[in-house]
Amino acid sequence: MELPPTRIAAVMASVRARINARSYVPGMRLPSVRAQAKALQVSVSTVVEAYARLVAEGVISSRPGAGFHVNGPVAPLALSGIDPPRDRQVDPLWLARQSLEHDARVLKPGCGWLPEDWMYVEGIRRGLRSAARASATSLADYASPLGLPPLRQLLARRLAGQGVDAAPEQILLAESGSHAIDLICRFLLQPGDTVLVDDPCYFNFLALLKAHRVQVVGIPYTPNGPDVEAFGAALQAHSPRLYITNSGLHNPTGAVLSPVTAHRLLTLAEGSDLVIVEDDLFADFEHSPAPRLAAFDGLSRVIQIGSFSKTLSAAVRCGFIAARPEWIDALADLKIATSFGGGRLAADILLTALTDSGYRRHVETVRTRLAAARELTLDRLATLGIQPWIVPQAGMLLWCRLPDGLDAAAIAQRSLADGVVLAPGNAFSPSLGATGFLRFNAAQAQDTRVFEVLARAMRG
Amino acid sequence: MELPPTRIAAVMASVRARINARSYVPGMRLPSVRAQAKALQVSVSTVVEAYARLVAEGVISSRPGAGFHVNGPVAPLALSGIDPPRDRQVDPLWLARQSLEHDARVLKPGCGWLPEDWMYVEGIRRGLRSAARASATSLADYASPLGLPPLRQLLARRLAGQGVDAAPEQILLAESGSHAIDLICRFLLQPGDTVLVDDPCYFNFLALLKAHRVQVVGIPYTPNGPDVEAFGAALQAHSPRLYITNSGLHNPTGAVLSPVTAHRLLTLAEGSDLVIVEDDLFADFEHSPAPRLAAFDGLSRVIQIGSFSKTLSAAVRCGFIAARPEWIDALADLKIATSFGGGRLAADILLTALTDSGYRRHVETVRTRLAAARELTLDRLATLGIQPWIVPQAGMLLWCRLPDGLDAAAIAQRSLADGVVLAPGNAFSPSLGATGFLRFNAAQAQDTRVFEVLARAMRG
Repeated sequence: MELPPTRIAAVMASVRARINARSYVPGMRLPSVRAQAKALQVSVSTVVEAYARLVAEGVISSRPGAGFHVNGPVAPLALSGIDPPRDRQVDPLWLARQSLEHDARVLKPGCGWLPEDWMYVEGIRRGLRSAARASATSLADYASPLGLPPLRQLLARRLAGQGVDAAPEQILLAESGSHAIDLICRFLLQPGDTVLVDDPCYFNFLALLKAHRVQVVGIPYTPNGPDVEAFGAALQAHSPRLYITNSGLHNPTGAVLSPVTAHRLLTLAEGSDLVIVEDDLFADFEHSPAPRLAAFDGLSRVIQIGSFSKTLSAAVRCGFIAARPEWIDALADLKIATSFGGGRLAADILLTALTDSGYRRHVETVRTRLAAARELTLDRLATLGIQPWIVPQAGMLLWCRLPDGLDAAAIAQRSLADGVVLAPGNAFSPSLGATGFLRFNAAQAQDTRVFEVLARAMRG
Repeated sequence: MELPPTRIAAVMASVRARINARSYVPGMRLPSVRAQAKALQVSVSTVVEAYARLVAEGVISSRPGAGFHVNGPVAPLALSGIDPPRDRQVDPLWLARQSLEHDARVLKPGCGWLPEDWMYVEGIRRGLRSAARASATSLADYASPLGLPPLRQLLARRLAGQGVDAAPEQILLAESGSHAIDLICRFLLQPGDTVLVDDPCYFNFLALLKAHRVQVVGIPYTPNGPDVEAFGAALQAHSPRLYITNSGLHNPTGAVLSPVTAHRLLTLAEGSDLVIVEDDLFADFEHSPAPRLAAFDGLSRVIQIGSFSKTLSAAVRCGFIAARPEWIDALADLKIATSFGGGRLAADILLTALTDSGYRRHVETVRTRLAAARELTLDRLATLGIQPWIVPQAGMLLWCRLPDGLDAAAIAQRSLADGVVLAPGNAFSPSLGATGFLRFNAAQAQDTRVFEVLARAMRG
C-alpha cells in the first residue's frame, strides 16, 4: 500500500511543532506509534514512517524496547509572531553568555558593565564587615514583603532628587533590575500581548520578552529619544500593553530623552492603556539629570525601575520598582509567589555601602574616568574609520557605525576567536536593522589589544 | 428609547472580565465611550449606561474631562479552570505575607522556617568576614551562567551522598528554591497545562502555579507518599506536564516517600511526558536519608531542586537545580533572560559557611533540638485535643487535626487578632479538603502563649 505523503509530512510537522513549542523536550519519550496514530487520526503505518524519517533526520531516536525519544538540544525560545531568524552572533542570549563567562584572558569591550576594579569594592567590603556584626534576624531571616524599610526610604529620597515623588510604600525591592522588569511583565502581560521597545534597545529586553511569549514592536530611536511619529503609529496599530525604555542614559546609544519628546510620548499615551517601564539603572553616571518620564507622569502610567549593579556592584543583587501603591501590592504578591521574598542581606549590605559620602565620591571618580575613557576610545576607533552615532554626554556606552559594507556580526565572530567579545548591533535591534553597528564599552576598551584584534577582524 | 438590558450587561461583563484578567489595571483609563461602542458593536448610549452602572458599583470612576478609570484593588491571580473561591484566611499568598511581615511581637507557629537564633548565624558571620577580604571579582562582578563552580562541585558531592549522580555541569544555581521551581515552570509549562501537586502540598506551590496560569490537580497524600492509584488516574485523565512534590520531608505533613511508592510512581510515569520536580529543601533535617525520586530515576525525568534557606540562612539567597545537562543549558538561558545571572556573593558566603565541620555540627544540634521541640509541641497540642496526622521522624512540621467540627480558618483568624499566626489546612489543599487541619512549626511553638491563644480561639 502506498502511504499518503501529505499525512506523513503532517505527522512529522506535528512532532517538530511540539519540539519547537517545548512540549516535547530532549530525552522525553514520544507517544507510542499507536497512541500518536489515534491522536492524529492517521494510520499506524503513517506514524511508523514519519517516526522513521524523523530518526533519519536526527530529530528523534529509537531505543529498542523503549520507544522513540526526542534528541537535544532544547528548542530556543522564540518571540511570538514576526521574530526574524537570528544568527548565533546576534542572539541576545548568546551575547549575554559570552559576556558572563569568566575567563580572565578574554577582553570584553562588548559587555555592558564596568571592570570590577572600577566598582565600589571598598563600600562592599565595609558593608560586609558591618553585616558580619549584624543581628541574627538580618543574617538568617527572610526579607519583609516590600523589602528593607530604611533602604526603601533612601531610594525614595534619591527619586525625589530626580523629581519623582514616591513614598517608601511605593517602592518594592527586587533581586535585580532585570528581576524588577520581569515582575512587571508577569503583572501586566498575557502571552500574545504587544510590547514596544526602542530599536536599538538593551539586548536582554528581547530575551526577557521571549520568555513572556509576547509580540515585540521596535520604535526607531533618535538622539532625543524614541521617534514620536513611529511611537504614535505603533500605539494606533498595535494597542501595546507596555513600552520598555531607558531614560537617563539609553542603552546601547548613550542618548538621553529630551523634555519635548518625553512630553509628547506621554500625551500620545493618554487615553490608551499603555504602561511605560523606565529602566533607570545608569542614573548615577549622569553629570546632570536628564528628564525622567516618571517625573513628568507622576508614577501614574510610568513605572520606574533601577538597581546599583552598574555603579556599585553586580555581585550584591538588589533592584527596585517604584510604581502606584496598588500595583506595588500586586507586584509584591508575585515576588512572593515566584521567589518567596527576597534578599535581606543584600539590601543590608547595599544600605551600608550607600549611606556615607564614599559612594558619592566613588561615582564622581568613575564619571571622570569614563569621560577620559570615552574620549580615548573614540580616538582609537576613529583611526579604524569607526564613528559614533552620537557622542554621549556620560556613561560607558558608545554606539558606533562601521565603515560602509562591513558586517558587525562577522567581525564579532572573528574577534571572538582572538579572545575579544564584541557586541554586534543586531543583538540590540528587534528589526535586525543595525548590521553595521557595534556597541563599545569605553571602560572595557582600555587594552590596546582590543583595537589590534578589531583591526584584524575588519580586514576579514 | 428603551436600552437593551442584555447589551448593557454584556458591556459591563466585558469590562469586569478585562479587570479580572488584568488587562485593565487600577488607575488605567477605560476606552472612551465611543471607542468602546465601536469595539463591542453596541450603541454609544448602551456604553454610557453600562459605564454609569459600573461607576455606581464602584468598579470604575469618572473624572470630569478625563474619562473613566479603573478603581483598585488589582484583581488577584486565579488558577485557571476549577480554582475554588478561597477565603482570605486560606489564601496561600495571605499566609505567606502574614509569615513574612516583621513584627517581633507576633508569634508565628504557622510559618515554615526556624527562628533566626536556630539558624547557622555563626557560619554566615564567618562567610561575611571571609567575603570582605575576597577579590574585587567576587565582590563586584556578575556570576558565571551556571553559578560559582566550587559551590556546584560541593553540591554534586552532597547529591552523590543521597544516591543522586549529577556532575557539576548538571547543577545550576538559582536565587532560591522557589526561584528554581519558577525557572523550571517557565521552561516546561505553557498557560493551560496541567500540573500535579500533593494534596496537601507546600502552599506556595499553589501561588507559584497561579502565576503560570496552569491547571492544578491535587493527588491525595498518604503517610508513604502520594496515593499511587490517584496518581495513575490523574496521569491518564489529565496528561499532566509536571508533578511537583517534596521528598526527604514532605511539607506540610513531615511524611517521607517509601521506596515502593517511589518505584511505582516512576513506573506509572514511563511512556508519559511527565517531568517530576523533587523539592528537597528539608534534606539536612533527616536523620537517615529517605528515598529520592532523583536517585531512582537517575535525573532522567526527575529534576531535583534545593536550597539552604531552612537550615543555614534565608537571608543568603541561593538555591540550585540538578537536571539533565541539556535542560540545565536551557534553564541557564531563562535565568539570564529573566534576572541576568545571579548572586555571586551569596554563593561565595554559602560556600564558606558550608565548608568546614561547623555546619555539620550545627545541623546535628538542630536535629536534636527539633526532636525535643516536636515532642513538647505534640504534648501541648494533645492537651487541646489536637492530634498529629502522623508523628514525623524529623523536621519542624506537624500536620495536625483539630477536634471534630472545628474550622481551622476561623481559629487562625481569631488567633491572628491575638498576635499568633497559624497556618490553616486549606491554604495547603488544592481541593480545600483540609478544613479541620493546622500545620504547626515545633520550633516556632516554644512560647506557651501560642497554646493559650490557640485554646481561646478554639473556644470561639
